[in-house]
Amino acid sequence: MIKTVAIQGIKGSFHHIVSKAYFGNLVDIVECLSFDAAVESLLVKDTNAVIMAIENSIAGSIIPNYALIDAHNLHIVGEYYLNVQHHLMALNDQSINDIKEVYSHPMALLQCKEFFKNQPHIKLIEDKDTAEVAKRISNNKLKGIAAIASDLAAELFNLNILAESIQTIKHNETRFVIVKRKNHEISESEINKASLKFELDHQRGSLAAILNVMSDCKLNLTKIQSLPKIETPWKYAFFVDVTFTDYEDYKKAIAIMKIMAVEIKVLGEYKNAKL
Amino acid sequence: MIKTVAIQGIKGSFHHIVSKAYFGNLVDIVECLSFDAAVESLLVKDTNAVIMAIENSIAGSIIPNYALIDAHNLHIVGEYYLNVQHHLMALNDQSINDIKEVYSHPMALLQCKEFFKNQPHIKLIEDKDTAEVAKRISNNKLKGIAAIASDLAAELFNLNILAESIQTIKHNETRFVIVKRKNHEISESEINKASLKFELDHQRGSLAAILNVMSDCKLNLTKIQSLPKIETPWKYAFFVDVTFTDYEDYKKAIAIMKIMAVEIKVLGEYKNAKL
Repeated sequence: MIKTVAIQGIKGSFHHIVSKAYFGNLVDIVECLSFDAAVESLLVKDTNAVIMAIENSIAGSIIPNYALIDAHNLHIVGEYYLNVQHHLMALNDQSINDIKEVYSHPMALLQCKEFFKNQPHIKLIEDKDTAEVAKRISNNKLKGIAAIASDLAAELFNLNILAESIQTIKHNETRFVIVKRKNHEISESEINKASLKFELDHQRGSLAAILNVMSDCKLNLTKIQSLPKIETPWKYAFFVDVTFTDYEDYKKAIAIMKIMAVEIKVLGEYKNAKL
Repeated sequence: MIKTVAIQGIKGSFHHIVSKAYFGNLVDIVECLSFDAAVESLLVKDTNAVIMAIENSIAGSIIPNYALIDAHNLHIVGEYYLNVQHHLMALNDQSINDIKEVYSHPMALLQCKEFFKNQPHIKLIEDKDTAEVAKRISNNKLKGIAAIASDLAAELFNLNILAESIQTIKHNETRFVIVKRKNHEISESEINKASLKFELDHQRGSLAAILNVMSDCKLNLTKIQSLPKIETPWKYAFFVDVTFTDYEDYKKAIAIMKIMAVEIKVLGEYKNAKL
């Protein structure tokens, strides 16, 4: 039973939208200033789960978040895909011509820079959180300033959306994972996806051999990523996600991979959110 | 013959260090405010080459830079590995206790945040470029302000290093690529590394099959990364780097992969900088 969920950012952020979609509205949200702080709250048991962006269709994997899960032996218990849409918002009496400055998170500014090429009168300024700027504009009745944030932020802080979906790449999908201290709570028959980390000897063909095993055991690879840093010379580490229809097939694959790999770690077993 | 090199950032930046190491000092440096601007300068032939960070040991691949190379059909003609060391620097008469504010690039601030936990009197402020802050401190004789930047920046702008290598993870390796409009200039016998992008049908085992071919042809995989976004349903795309000792082996592998893959593109053939 989930009662308290740590999110990166404040209420109105994209992490908050994911919490609502995944857990509904009857949980307490703990607003955290960083992913580190969110994980810390989970470790000291202030919270029961963390919502964490793990990859997006523009920038790829967020490796530091994988590292946080791995280093603290946390477990991915679920996933959620959100099509992130950035909107420009301001106080109700403002038009886009009134706006002098836009504050937002560097990633949001980057994703929306094309839109502002046609708005040379607007200065772009980096800020900590997308939703926090919306809240500040609302609380302090700031004129001439706009935020780039979610529709939830506009709703919560009673701002007017001046321009919808202003990000350059219109389909901007981000994958979030739900992370807990303990492994999955669902039954084996419900599990059809897993996230693994494994290390191989740096021998030619060692990855091909292990992928053959996965294929023979009817696992579908949905993601593979070699680790950017090979800390131990002559060894390679990989993050992979696999989907399957029969948990027994998966168990068999893991058993064989345990023999073949130098090390293998299950980061999570959960229900595939992408069908 | 290289004459003009575009770098991201200004002189004194880590990209400048790589340019010096790779091309020596007898080239003109064009300082660019973004990777996009650097690539633009190459496309309009204002520059002959671009230096571009492509992955680092902390954050992983810089997918948007792969996308820039791919979208404009540019070529990786070389690579360089730099162990990025961040130093805290200020005017010569300043001690660390005099420092009230540190300005730097968000990534540099992130990588050094542990160091500043013991310096609660210092405020951290995001800025555009590591070296540009060093230059500003020097030009305007700014007291009470420090930069986080390279040893080259300290040297160029005559600043005093208050603390060396303040990044949390001491070994902080970044891989840079040298990018040109045309393919390689070195002879086939010198080429022992290649960067490829390929697309596969989303059939179970299709990646294992292609890795088997690579292994059979004596290619070593040094990096693999599935693309975060699969634009075409049921197709998967991958970026891989391979090393080899015989160019003929590589040519044979590419010929077979062309038959097996839906699409294959050579992003570059060059000399392995990591031995």
